[in-house]
Amino acid sequence: MAKIEPRTFKGTRDFLPSEMIRREELFDYLRTVFQRYGFAPLETPAMEFMEILLGKYGVEGEKLIYPLAYKGGKTLALRYDLTVPLARAVAEHHELPRPFKRYQMQPVWRADKPQLHQGRYREFYQCDADIVGEESRVADAEILALVAEILHGLEVGTFQVRLNHRKILEGLVAAAGLPPEAGPAVLRAIDKLDKVGEAGIEAELEREGIEREARSRILTLLSSPSGGRDAIERAGENPHPAFREGAADLLKIWSALEAMGVAMDRFEFRFTLARGLDYYTGAVYEASIDSLPHLGSLAGGGRYDGLVGLFSDEDVPAVGVAIGFDRVLTALEQLGRLPARPTRTEVLVLQFSPESAAAGLSMLGRLRREGIRAEFWYRAERLGKQIQQADRRGIPCVIFQGPEEAERGEWVAKRLDSGEQLTFPEAEVPARLESLVRAR
Amino acid sequence: MAKIEPRTFKGTRDFLPSEMIRREELFDYLRTVFQRYGFAPLETPAMEFMEILLGKYGVEGEKLIYPLAYKGGKTLALRYDLTVPLARAVAEHHELPRPFKRYQMQPVWRADKPQLHQGRYREFYQCDADIVGEESRVADAEILALVAEILHGLEVGTFQVRLNHRKILEGLVAAAGLPPEAGPAVLRAIDKLDKVGEAGIEAELEREGIEREARSRILTLLSSPSGGRDAIERAGENPHPAFREGAADLLKIWSALEAMGVAMDRFEFRFTLARGLDYYTGAVYEASIDSLPHLGSLAGGGRYDGLVGLFSDEDVPAVGVAIGFDRVLTALEQLGRLPARPTRTEVLVLQFSPESAAAGLSMLGRLRREGIRAEFWYRAERLGKQIQQADRRGIPCVIFQGPEEAERGEWVAKRLDSGEQLTFPEAEVPARLESLVRAR
Repeated sequence: MAKIEPRTFKGTRDFLPSEMIRREELFDYLRTVFQRYGFAPLETPAMEFMEILLGKYGVEGEKLIYPLAYKGGKTLALRYDLTVPLARAVAEHHELPRPFKRYQMQPVWRADKPQLHQGRYREFYQCDADIVGEESRVADAEILALVAEILHGLEVGTFQVRLNHRKILEGLVAAAGLPPEAGPAVLRAIDKLDKVGEAGIEAELEREGIEREARSRILTLLSSPSGGRDAIERAGENPHPAFREGAADLLKIWSALEAMGVAMDRFEFRFTLARGLDYYTGAVYEASIDSLPHLGSLAGGGRYDGLVGLFSDEDVPAVGVAIGFDRVLTALEQLGRLPARPTRTEVLVLQFSPESAAAGLSMLGRLRREGIRAEFWYRAERLGKQIQQADRRGIPCVIFQGPEEAERGEWVAKRLDSGEQLTFPEAEVPARLESLVRAR
Repeated sequence: MAKIEPRTFKGTRDFLPSEMIRREELFDYLRTVFQRYGFAPLETPAMEFMEILLGKYGVEGEKLIYPLAYKGGKTLALRYDLTVPLARAVAEHHELPRPFKRYQMQPVWRADKPQLHQGRYREFYQCDADIVGEESRVADAEILALVAEILHGLEVGTFQVRLNHRKILEGLVAAAGLPPEAGPAVLRAIDKLDKVGEAGIEAELEREGIEREARSRILTLLSSPSGGRDAIERAGENPHPAFREGAADLLKIWSALEAMGVAMDRFEFRFTLARGLDYYTGAVYEASIDSLPHLGSLAGGGRYDGLVGLFSDEDVPAVGVAIGFDRVLTALEQLGRLPARPTRTEVLVLQFSPESAAAGLSMLGRLRREGIRAEFWYRAERLGKQIQQADRRGIPCVIFQGPEEAERGEWVAKRLDSGEQLTFPEAEVPARLESLVRAR
């Protein structure tokens, strides 16, 4: 029979154990912090009705979506983010409390051309935390405190959370003498600053048909100083009312963060932070690690008060953040943190000979009942070969019992890193092993 | 603008927090046991190439698959189980060690008609543990020990693991004087025993065109006694060699389980256990809880030595089990275990007045830094109303500081279940709260 070639769709990945162990640790860590901030878990189905997915991005979004070949391919598709499913779920389940603080860590799918060297995949996890149904700017501050806490706890060195406000960006458009309709084009251009520099933005704005005078006003405003509370206050002094409104909002968030005792030297107001998505209505932010600027932003979010309204007659304010799981993992890797571990197994029980198998299985059962993560080597091969297998798999310790040890009621334990070899009385094996493998 | 109706595809589900908290606990538990048995995590993509998915079930499987509307709908589809992706991954990644012991807990999709009252969904999680690349029957025993350990640890009362062997089923067909080709029809009929009874099987076999004499031989054999080691030995005495082979295999597994110290009174050899799937080649088994017979089997599996060979020139033996996550959850619910918890938050920080917000946020930050799961009530409403909100959300404790307490540098903590109210000096709040909420 002809064999079927084993392969995966480009842009999707198998996560083998050494990678998965790391991923599980990061998921667990994120979950712990989310919970400490009072967020509760939510999961939604992979497939959503097309009209729901297209509600936010419209026809432009359709390109990004994987539809199912179900009823002509126009009915169902795979979700491309977790924000639209959240908005849909909040509108659907009236029993959910308000404010509703939820985290969600699930894969999403994008019918993009994958760019593997840039870490862009067709299937990847998003890890979101959102507060739905709350206008108080304390909610915005909680999301920002959460981001800072996550990065702080990962010990990735100094990091930066950049802040801006949708109203300030609108003020910028107005102050340049442009109509609100010019907004999206201007924001798109600004969003590229880090990539193309000031001259690049000028060229970009020109391409968008924006006149020289408006261009120069925009560039002057963009060069306003970034910084902390002072910079926000200065931006609020601009006579265009949108500036005042945006700055006042940011100052409320800033004060709440200070009250919570968050280290504010990590936060910076930036005139030039635009963020692509159209649906933000208030504060926007993104975070990066100082020593890894090439990775770009590891988390980003903002306030989006209009989204739930697509599915509901109510106005439901919302604010949230998406943690870039893959990028955070890459950062940890590049910083040498969270090293790959091929296994979590602590002990391999060896077979001294086929006759010793039953004694080995008995010990295996005892170790597991005592909570020790143990495996058994199925073949009574040469002891050295079995030890090699343990080593190759990254199992730190082996135990075995030869006929002499069996007679004396003892077991031999060997640590593979140090070569240290110890003999334990049978009854004490689990306890002694536990301190041997967990001590370091 | 017309609103988009918020709804989900029938047979798929949102898991809201109270359900998700329970699910997360069960996932964590399963993961812990899998790891104690030396299984390592694997994740594979949701989408696989169609030819890979159809390799096992062929055209019959196509009905069960959700294809993507990608390149004519013939290229990619959503996985319908985790066994085929495992076989594909093992054939694809030569760097994986052998034996490869992996667990995988991910959703699968079935283009079935959903039957919600029977717990049949279009999207559901499978939790699998498999050992690939090992012929030793100790591997079969490890899978069975794992199943028993999982059910034991869940404290679901007495349970039963039923065992049979593919060879014994083949022997049954041969002993009835039927050709091997009749096997699938006979197994399908036997598989329905629990539902249709002996008379039903007889009718079913007749419909399949099996003669009266063969039918009566099958029914006689099926009524051979079930039981432990004795019953297996008796089955092995049947002159058809397949019986001997199957029984010898089961006895090896039985002995390994005994050597591990597994309580064997939970295990039973059953002539009538068929399991539908064609790909099993050795032992087959399934587990159920005695007090919940209507739930059917909560876990099932067996040895399937041919599957990896679909994708590889190597012969790769394999054995494994799938835990029915939803069924286990239903069982725990029906037994009143793992009760629903609407939140994991331990403390809600109330606002005595708008003026006390900053002090509240400061306390909120401190509590979280001390690892206490805390939320803040965003609105300075009447205190009674805020306490009601905590109660409705299942948060066990609130704290607040009125102007008098502020003057004395104190906080008031109130447990909502007992109504107990205590006053703590500011500096001691985190420690005192921790013992207050975690004591019970």
